Amino acid sequence: MTYFRDNINEMTGYTPGFQPKAADVVKLNTNENPYAPSPRVLEALKNLAPETLRRYPDPVGQAFREAAATLHGLSPDSILCCNGGDDLLTLAFRAFCDETRPVAYPVPTYTLYAVLARIQNCAAAEVPFGDHFSLPDKLAHVGAPLTIVCNPNAPTGTLIRPNVLADLAGQIKGVLLIDEAYGDFAETNCLDLVRTLDNVILLRSMSKGYSLAGIRFGYAMAHPDLIAGLMKVKDSYNVDAMTLAAATAAIQDQAHFQANVKKTKAARAILTQDLRNLGLDVLDSQTNFVLARSPDFPAADLHGQLAAQHIFVRYFKLPGLADKLRITVGTPDQNTRLIQAMKEILAQ
Amino acid sequence: MTYFRDNINEMTGYTPGFQPKAADVVKLNTNENPYAPSPRVLEALKNLAPETLRRYPDPVGQAFREAAATLHGLSPDSILCCNGGDDLLTLAFRAFCDETRPVAYPVPTYTLYAVLARIQNCAAAEVPFGDHFSLPDKLAHVGAPLTIVCNPNAPTGTLIRPNVLADLAGQIKGVLLIDEAYGDFAETNCLDLVRTLDNVILLRSMSKGYSLAGIRFGYAMAHPDLIAGLMKVKDSYNVDAMTLAAATAAIQDQAHFQANVKKTKAARAILTQDLRNLGLDVLDSQTNFVLARSPDFPAADLHGQLAAQHIFVRYFKLPGLADKLRITVGTPDQNTRLIQAMKEILAQ
Repeated sequence: MTYFRDNINEMTGYTPGFQPKAADVVKLNTNENPYAPSPRVLEALKNLAPETLRRYPDPVGQAFREAAATLHGLSPDSILCCNGGDDLLTLAFRAFCDETRPVAYPVPTYTLYAVLARIQNCAAAEVPFGDHFSLPDKLAHVGAPLTIVCNPNAPTGTLIRPNVLADLAGQIKGVLLIDEAYGDFAETNCLDLVRTLDNVILLRSMSKGYSLAGIRFGYAMAHPDLIAGLMKVKDSYNVDAMTLAAATAAIQDQAHFQANVKKTKAARAILTQDLRNLGLDVLDSQTNFVLARSPDFPAADLHGQLAAQHIFVRYFKLPGLADKLRITVGTPDQNTRLIQAMKEILAQ
Repeated sequence: MTYFRDNINEMTGYTPGFQPKAADVVKLNTNENPYAPSPRVLEALKNLAPETLRRYPDPVGQAFREAAATLHGLSPDSILCCNGGDDLLTLAFRAFCDETRPVAYPVPTYTLYAVLARIQNCAAAEVPFGDHFSLPDKLAHVGAPLTIVCNPNAPTGTLIRPNVLADLAGQIKGVLLIDEAYGDFAETNCLDLVRTLDNVILLRSMSKGYSLAGIRFGYAMAHPDLIAGLMKVKDSYNVDAMTLAAATAAIQDQAHFQANVKKTKAARAILTQDLRNLGLDVLDSQTNFVLARSPDFPAADLHGQLAAQHIFVRYFKLPGLADKLRITVGTPDQNTRLIQAMKEILAQ
């Protein structure tokens, strides 16, 4: 006997990346930023009054909205604070999709989209990317009330140009959610689309560029009408007082943020070249990870042998990905330890 | 033109209680605890390593689960960590309800239930409480996959006995979610039901008894099979690292918690008597608020005149409630200021 809805019963939950307990590991499996967050974040948390913990937080996080609006040149009512980017994805499925209203997205991509479709019990049109991970033409013709494009995409690290996505938004009748969780590391982004198109939602996260995966904070940027509708669906107090303080401090320290992003981009270039020197195929990445394919050595074995040395990378047993590894760009030292270990394993 | 589902379009979102910005107010409108949280919580937050912010949190919050399991005499897999009690309510609607699977609950009660039913697009069987806010017999016969009883109930402050709810759980085919957000202030609770019944979910919150409304933390206790199913529906990292640290520290300081609860219960007895002395009808409360009815003076006016003096209580313009005020039990000093102000207003 079961108490759950059939779709919940039959599904498997999303599996987050492995979180090793040990400290002495090279952790390149969940795309965390290897550098510490802004000292202003720690300062903000240290200065939190007990009163802040005792009272309910600001339901909309107005201080953050104003800081983000100033940075991006939007109005505060174009911003929605979320409990991580995943909270926004969940809200979008609940607001736009149901049994008669499908979602569409190009694949391979972030595997959570498929899980959320199962939970919401909506059909998911999974359209394979075109050559070189270009946007598939078919995506515009699905007729889905919600279309999601992860851009730059995970786990490929590839980028669709903003003008191509603007065209897509113009062609579809529904909403286009552009998941820019990795946008901080890309050479361009889709911010301008939000200013002119009323059916585009941009997702941003503080987990990667801002080194704050632990605080769970993401935000949406969109036309105020879309934000107002999503507000009705979110939990009243979806973001806590500590996270709001931390996120507001972080976004106001752009110098720290940009310096860390710059270091990661430099390390990414070296890591990409080093992997290619080992004989792996590596796509040029616009994110803080690279997708690498070993032509000879099975990826699952490589993943396992690295893990045995406490070097963790991500392996997806999925179509098109089973011969590849997704490797987070770490510090130069971490990357060197990875390359050295891979060299020894591949030489076996 | 709209992009949203019809049910989202047509609904109004939940309205949280007013959060005044000013500090010099008597805030008795959102059932926050007037006393500071455990100093151990502040200590835990001060000692958070930057590393904790940088990395993803534990997806299941195992440290908290173990602490809660020890306290309640359950196994850790009977515990689910949530982003406030509201997160658990949202999960329950998504896991058990849809267009063919209704929810049922006695009314008047926490108005969020009706909002979540609209979002999930499920029917809501709202069954009026019996005499003296007893459990209505009809509730067992609705045939709802999800039945919710807020116990003690908001905004009435009344309590249904555990054996009555055990009978209800035995009669229904679906799940019984007992919302014990205010259970810390009641003379008994339904913990024992979780040990013996596989269809009962208990909701607990740290917002009230633990003085931690700002951190957003609640948890479920239920049979491990129910917890496992809800795990599939929750966001992977639904609770952040700071909240997990704070909640774990708080639950381990039972002495602080119990001392604060004791103070509130004592103040509640005095407040109840003082309000009755002013001529108001006040139900005996099992929570940290009282529901008071003024036989002569319109409740909306009383609410407004108190607010003009920066004394905030809660007024619901709803059937059965429009002649009443819900007043949070504050410190003895706050309660005295309220009583003094009411005395002057009622004497007009």
